Amino acid sequence: MAIIQCDIRRGRSDDQKRKLAAGLTAVVSEITGESIESMFLVIREMPGFNFVDAGEHVAEYVAGPDGTDVAGSAQLHARGII
Amino acid sequence: MAIIQCDIRRGRSDDQKRKLAAGLTAVVSEITGESIESMFLVIREMPGFNFVDAGEHVAEYVAGPDGTDVAGSAQLHARGII
Amino acid sequence: MAIIQCDIRRGRSDDQKRKLAAGLTAVVSEITGESIESMFLVIREMPGFNFVDAGEHVAEYVAGPDGTDVAGSAQLHARGII
Amino acid sequence: MAIIQCDIRRGRSDDQKRKLAAGLTAVVSEITGESIESMFLVIREMPGFNFVDAGEHVAEYVAGPDGTDVAGSAQLHARGII
Amino acid sequence: MAIIQCDIRRGRSDDQKRKLAAGLTAVVSEITGESIESMFLVIREMPGFNFVDAGEHVAEYVAGPDGTDVAGSAQLHARGII
Amino acid sequence: MAIIQCDIRRGRSDDQKRKLAAGLTAVVSEITGESIESMFLVIREMPGFNFVDAGEHVAEYVAGPDGTDVAGSAQLHARGII
Repeated sequence: MAIIQCDIRRGRSDDQKRKLAAGLTAVVSEITGESIESMFLVIREMPGFNFVDAGEHVAEYVAGPDGTDVAGSAQLHARGII
Repeated sequence: MAIIQCDIRRGRSDDQKRKLAAGLTAVVSEITGESIESMFLVIREMPGFNFVDAGEHVAEYVAGPDGTDVAGSAQLHARGII
Repeated sequence: MAIIQCDIRRGRSDDQKRKLAAGLTAVVSEITGESIESMFLVIREMPGFNFVDAGEHVAEYVAGPDGTDVAGSAQLHARGII
Repeated sequence: MAIIQCDIRRGRSDDQKRKLAAGLTAVVSEITGESIESMFLVIREMPGFNFVDAGEHVAEYVAGPDGTDVAGSAQLHARGII
Repeated sequence: MAIIQCDIRRGRSDDQKRKLAAGLTAVVSEITGESIESMFLVIREMPGFNFVDAGEHVAEYVAGPDGTDVAGSAQLHARGII
Repeated sequence: MAIIQCDIRRGRSDDQKRKLAAGLTAVVSEITGESIESMFLVIREMPGFNFVDAGEHVAEYVAGPDGTDVAGSAQLHARGII
């Protein structure tokens, strides 16, 4: 049995959340050796402002081509992280 | 930015935890479109007894061949789930 | 002191949440032997879609007679769990 | 589906944890109308020192008669809460 | 690396949340000796009704002068806590 | 009422945890306007290996002069973050 909690910024499509759920469930099941029947996941969504990284409130999620996180990437770029 | 919390039963090897971390980070980054630099993960490990599924305490993790969860699978099997 | 976090699907009435709070507080206090004054509870509510059980997104909560979880039960039934 | 997380001080017996799990599962299932098959619980145990209530570190759990929380109750009493 | 999760009642201004984030990040960084670059914070906001203290649902946050929590303080006063 | 959860690497002294608790309680109370009597905090401690930042397991906490996080800082430095 594994409980996975995933806190993310709001704004992802249902399709992204569907893939996120499938991906997380598969990864944990494969690696821990537990049946997929004992994987439990909850996704919590909040405004970017409620997330703080290195003292900075995170920009809201704005989907670029292929779902890329445009504003978040710009922010990391400005901090010299990527 | 994504915060992933993963509560699992104790007993996995460092190698399993390394793969778990890599897998979870990759999956969330790919699907949410966020940089891997903004993925934060914590793995909490506890005795199987502290996990309760459908009213039953979960058996301790005992690694079978390829890390399979022998006791956990037997328990799900006994309940007719798998 | 005990901190209880309860993540459930949205859609319960205030009356259900009132009973849930009273029930959880009483149970933990009775069994752990701690005063009710040191029980702290938070209830988080999210769409059913944000909950994933055995790889399946959970159906939204639809109250049947006596608050029964109609859609959720149908889903478990379809999987052969109940 | 409900995920219940219960952070408590270490020191409870297996019997207390068994009753805690049964009680929490039953209460949430009854009131939310969800099947017991979709109740998932994790109990995390830590030293009393890691819990802070009203700015005070909580005393370690010392089981009195019937599992009463002797030191915790004394502390609340000293603060004039009970 | 530290992950701080802060569950509070909804109703604070952006300015309060900005100060909360700055204060929490600074405090944890100073005392744990970790760089501010490895502090991650998420603030979750919910109705007061979803918080239960000593068996009582908490009153909604109503900002008094200087952001004081008028209704919450009245409630603690009625219980003889403050 | 506020519930603060703080997941940190193990290895801090009781004195550091005492200051951490006092600091977090004070900051949240001051800024949210809530009484210190309604602040609840839990500190969870785990091996550095169980924390993953940007895909990298975090080094164990080794206290330098004034409690500085020697190994963690070296790791951030190697990544070019600080």
